Amino acid sequence: LVKKQARGHLVLIGGAEDKFGDKRILLEFFRLSGGKEARIVVLPTASRSTALGNLYKTIFTEWGADCTVMSIDNRSEADNAQKAVQVREANGIFLTGGDQLKITSLLGGTRVASALCRAFFVRGATVGGTSAGAAAMSAHMIISGSRGSIPRRGMVEMAPGLGLLSGMIVDQHFSQRERIGRLLSAVARNPALLGIGIDENTAAHVSPDRMLSVFGNGTVTLVDASKMQYTNVYQLTNPRPVVLANVTLHVLADGFRYDIRRRKTVLPETAEKLEEQPIRRVLHRL
Amino acid sequence: LVKKQARGHLVLIGGAEDKFGDKRILLEFFRLSGGKEARIVVLPTASRSTALGNLYKTIFTEWGADCTVMSIDNRSEADNAQKAVQVREANGIFLTGGDQLKITSLLGGTRVASALCRAFFVRGATVGGTSAGAAAMSAHMIISGSRGSIPRRGMVEMAPGLGLLSGMIVDQHFSQRERIGRLLSAVARNPALLGIGIDENTAAHVSPDRMLSVFGNGTVTLVDASKMQYTNVYQLTNPRPVVLANVTLHVLADGFRYDIRRRKTVLPETAEKLEEQPIRRVLHRL
Repeated sequence: LVKKQARGHLVLIGGAEDKFGDKRILLEFFRLSGGKEARIVVLPTASRSTALGNLYKTIFTEWGADCTVMSIDNRSEADNAQKAVQVREANGIFLTGGDQLKITSLLGGTRVASALCRAFFVRGATVGGTSAGAAAMSAHMIISGSRGSIPRRGMVEMAPGLGLLSGMIVDQHFSQRERIGRLLSAVARNPALLGIGIDENTAAHVSPDRMLSVFGNGTVTLVDASKMQYTNVYQLTNPRPVVLANVTLHVLADGFRYDIRRRKTVLPETAEKLEEQPIRRVLHRL
Repeated sequence: LVKKQARGHLVLIGGAEDKFGDKRILLEFFRLSGGKEARIVVLPTASRSTALGNLYKTIFTEWGADCTVMSIDNRSEADNAQKAVQVREANGIFLTGGDQLKITSLLGGTRVASALCRAFFVRGATVGGTSAGAAAMSAHMIISGSRGSIPRRGMVEMAPGLGLLSGMIVDQHFSQRERIGRLLSAVARNPALLGIGIDENTAAHVSPDRMLSVFGNGTVTLVDASKMQYTNVYQLTNPRPVVLANVTLHVLADGFRYDIRRRKTVLPETAEKLEEQPIRRVLHRL
């Protein structure tokens, strides 16, 4: 009802995106950040490796962007005023993979986190993140959980995220690590949240008008429990299966879009030509 | 940085508030809801007992309010349009104690939840809640955890709350159930959040200008980790103790106020007269 109005674009990547071939997902982030005019800051905070940050830098710099890798490994670095200015003035900010809890526990409440929000909400900077970097963007994030397709009461551990994406919860490495169970378990806790599960080498681009576009090799799964008729999640003790009745599921592939406000899939033009046939492979209902 | 601007007042109660004596906390909620002019809706969704809802109704009705107990025990009742209208037009909405996960999993994404947000954010209705009802109001809520004063990695289970209170996390029965450890553990995950621990028969009134006032018999503890220098929360595996360096703690009693925006205690006039002496019993630093 009362949502933060963001001016920036988000590129949520499910991890393991192509970095050596046509790099299509990273190219989309680069384009949305302003292309050759982009000032990009890579934040490798989630990871333990500086080499990872430098790999992204090499890619974005080769394409013509002005790119900096900003190493932040403790809270005093995250409160550095110069770093905050650099983040606030970036056109593109990219969060690498690793551990999402490292991102929030080191950046939460600091000048750099505040600069990131200002760049995104006020100046309209593009923010991209892969794996942990994607998970940390939502207001509510999953930090760990069990593998499997059956939702269980205690299978998902949650924490407060950076809050760039309100009303949603992002999960990544989605099909590869069988995470539908934990995402269902998370949305059952509060069906106001839309669950977004993103496969590896796949991205969900969320524009300021809350349209989500899928691109990449895998799928993006949307779990909409707002019309859920019944759940027993509050009655269970660990680790019993959670019942969810009437959850709407969308499994979307490259070229499909989803209207987050209306909670509705938008078919690509090529698919609309086949409108007589129900698109069974793309749209299911649980 | 970008906060929801609420027009309503919140009355967060730590549970077990006096219902048979001077009922001071409930009286404050009644007064903030408009007193004798108030239309109050009691939502006993968290509890299993209709008697509890009726007890509140008796109290508010005796004081002269127009009070309804709205029983919602499944999601289709929570989507009832007439109930939603009644909630949207209330001046005061009161959530009883019980299980906070029952509140969010039954109400989340429904018409009644949406009406509650509209009443609070747009029309400026007062929303009160005790125990589970207080926990559910924040955007991030604690649903279970272990007792004790040492914060541990896996000691706290979180879920998305109703979102009336942004940037904060509320815990209740705070001193009585030794919950400082789990609240510290929760804010370490993202120090942007302010932790609020409320004792039994004690309330925190949060006004639209983000001033928090304490009233009642116990204390309200504020855990501000925004200046936290160091945490190892992301490095731990369960259930090792979490290190938090430089967390600011305020333990406030009746009559004290806290400026949430400035993260600063405001002394009552009587205490200001003692300004020469540091108020050691009230303001600590960890």
